[in-house]
Amino acid sequence: MTLDFQKSGGLVTAVIQDAGSGRVLMVGFMNQEAFRKTVETGYATFYSRSRQKLWLKGESSGHRLVVKDIATDCDLDALLIKVEALGPGVCHEGYESCFFRHLDGGEWKVTDRRTYDPNSVYGGKS
Amino acid sequence: MTLDFQKSGGLVTAVIQDAGSGRVLMVGFMNQEAFRKTVETGYATFYSRSRQKLWLKGESSGHRLVVKDIATDCDLDALLIKVEALGPGVCHEGYESCFFRHLDGGEWKVTDRRTYDPNSVYGGKS
Repeated sequence: MTLDFQKSGGLVTAVIQDAGSGRVLMVGFMNQEAFRKTVETGYATFYSRSRQKLWLKGESSGHRLVVKDIATDCDLDALLIKVEALGPGVCHEGYESCFFRHLDGGEWKVTDRRTYDPNSVYGGKS
Repeated sequence: MTLDFQKSGGLVTAVIQDAGSGRVLMVGFMNQEAFRKTVETGYATFYSRSRQKLWLKGESSGHRLVVKDIATDCDLDALLIKVEALGPGVCHEGYESCFFRHLDGGEWKVTDRRTYDPNSVYGGKS
């Protein structure tokens, strides 16, 4: 039984969930190589669609994701990865979770507070 | 501020999380129309890539997903939807969550027990 990388052009969706709090932190994509690296190294590694290359999460920020559990879904084209997130947040905009905007009265409103200053970590780069 | 439906051919990823337990139940896709229906009706509606049409989750099984909260991520191409799941499970294979297989020693193993008999609900159809 192997993951179905063919359905979405070589990629599966990877949902990253905090193993402790249960909060969903981000959604990324993995190709076969990124998945293999994730399993072998124990650190979540994605495939960046915009940069078209592997992307070790936390490579520049140090905010790595330590893999605690990996599940897949019924049709084998999505992953649910429980992690311990190193550092104050996974989002390059300075938040604990990338899901920091909520729909409120038809508009997206930021409800979280930043947990770190992204400029001090990424030096203005996203 | 609007969702970015263009990045993935008209679709955004929708992660469905149980509002009570925090368990991630499934991952689906929404086009603009599915998202609009989800917001307007309060029931999660997806776009089925295989059937190429809108898909009200629970249309045949009755296992609808009542929307409690909708969040989006930093680049506006994924949704995190917290729901109350009506019925014993969201997975058409008879499980509470579609993520019922976990990686264990390099193999995918089913760790959950079925919460209902899919044949009695779907009549053998998936």
